[in-house]
Amino acid sequence: MKLQFWSVGKQHESYVKEGIELFTKRIANYFPVYWQLIPAPKNAASLSESDLKIKEGEAIISQLKKEDYLIVLDERGKLLNSEGVAALLQQRANESTRNIVFLIGGAFGVSGEVLQRANYKWSLSPLVFPHQLVRFILAEQVYRACTIIKNEKYHHV
Amino acid sequence: MKLQFWSVGKQHESYVKEGIELFTKRIANYFPVYWQLIPAPKNAASLSESDLKIKEGEAIISQLKKEDYLIVLDERGKLLNSEGVAALLQQRANESTRNIVFLIGGAFGVSGEVLQRANYKWSLSPLVFPHQLVRFILAEQVYRACTIIKNEKYHHV
Repeated sequence: MKLQFWSVGKQHESYVKEGIELFTKRIANYFPVYWQLIPAPKNAASLSESDLKIKEGEAIISQLKKEDYLIVLDERGKLLNSEGVAALLQQRANESTRNIVFLIGGAFGVSGEVLQRANYKWSLSPLVFPHQLVRFILAEQVYRACTIIKNEKYHHV
Repeated sequence: MKLQFWSVGKQHESYVKEGIELFTKRIANYFPVYWQLIPAPKNAASLSESDLKIKEGEAIISQLKKEDYLIVLDERGKLLNSEGVAALLQQRANESTRNIVFLIGGAFGVSGEVLQRANYKWSLSPLVFPHQLVRFILAEQVYRACTIIKNEKYHHV
């Protein structure tokens, strides 16, 4: 099973880069993992929020394969505890999912079309986080889920 | 009103340092703010979890002033959305609180004595985060709360 982290926007900012790379590297001990950054549309500034979401959504959907299991990070999603994240991954592995895509949307969230395509909607917290920090938290939690699945000690830095 | 972030443990690790410093600096535009790191007891490794929590708790309580408003970050606390964090700060300002202490406990959480002393218990998320990441999230959320209180634009990096 491969894990992919998709995020709309630019490269990791320096204030989260080391953290994201640290935890992504640790995940790689458990699953093949990579980041795919989806650039915002070129004319983003001239688009309305809803048009921007639609455009971003089209780019996302065009890059998804039919069999990809899409987990969208969205504030309307389900709150999970860390064991719940582990159970979600374990269930995918049990059902022979080949590819999980974790998607962090753009500045205004994801389009209705993307939400409809989602196999799972996950909310990290009732708090709103900046997208760059969401990347960091996502990588850390997926690493933690890996340690829970394998019953291994969480390695503190 | 002063804001203090207290955390049991060592200095900020490099993978969160830039983020913590970035948001702490921004908070300083709204409130005087500083970090106080409370070292774990010297014989921490030889103590049981509960003894360690008690020792840490004693150190914390001895440093609190009677009038300090203590917000303990604890998984048994209340989940807030970002507006709720802003409302909490605003209410303290309205009630002329002089000093808010946000406390991040040690590796095994905080003692019963500290929980009893807490004026508020706040849970960031049902997810478990490493303490270093909690520092980062706390600073970011308090900055966000400041922008909400002042009705100012959240400055993305």
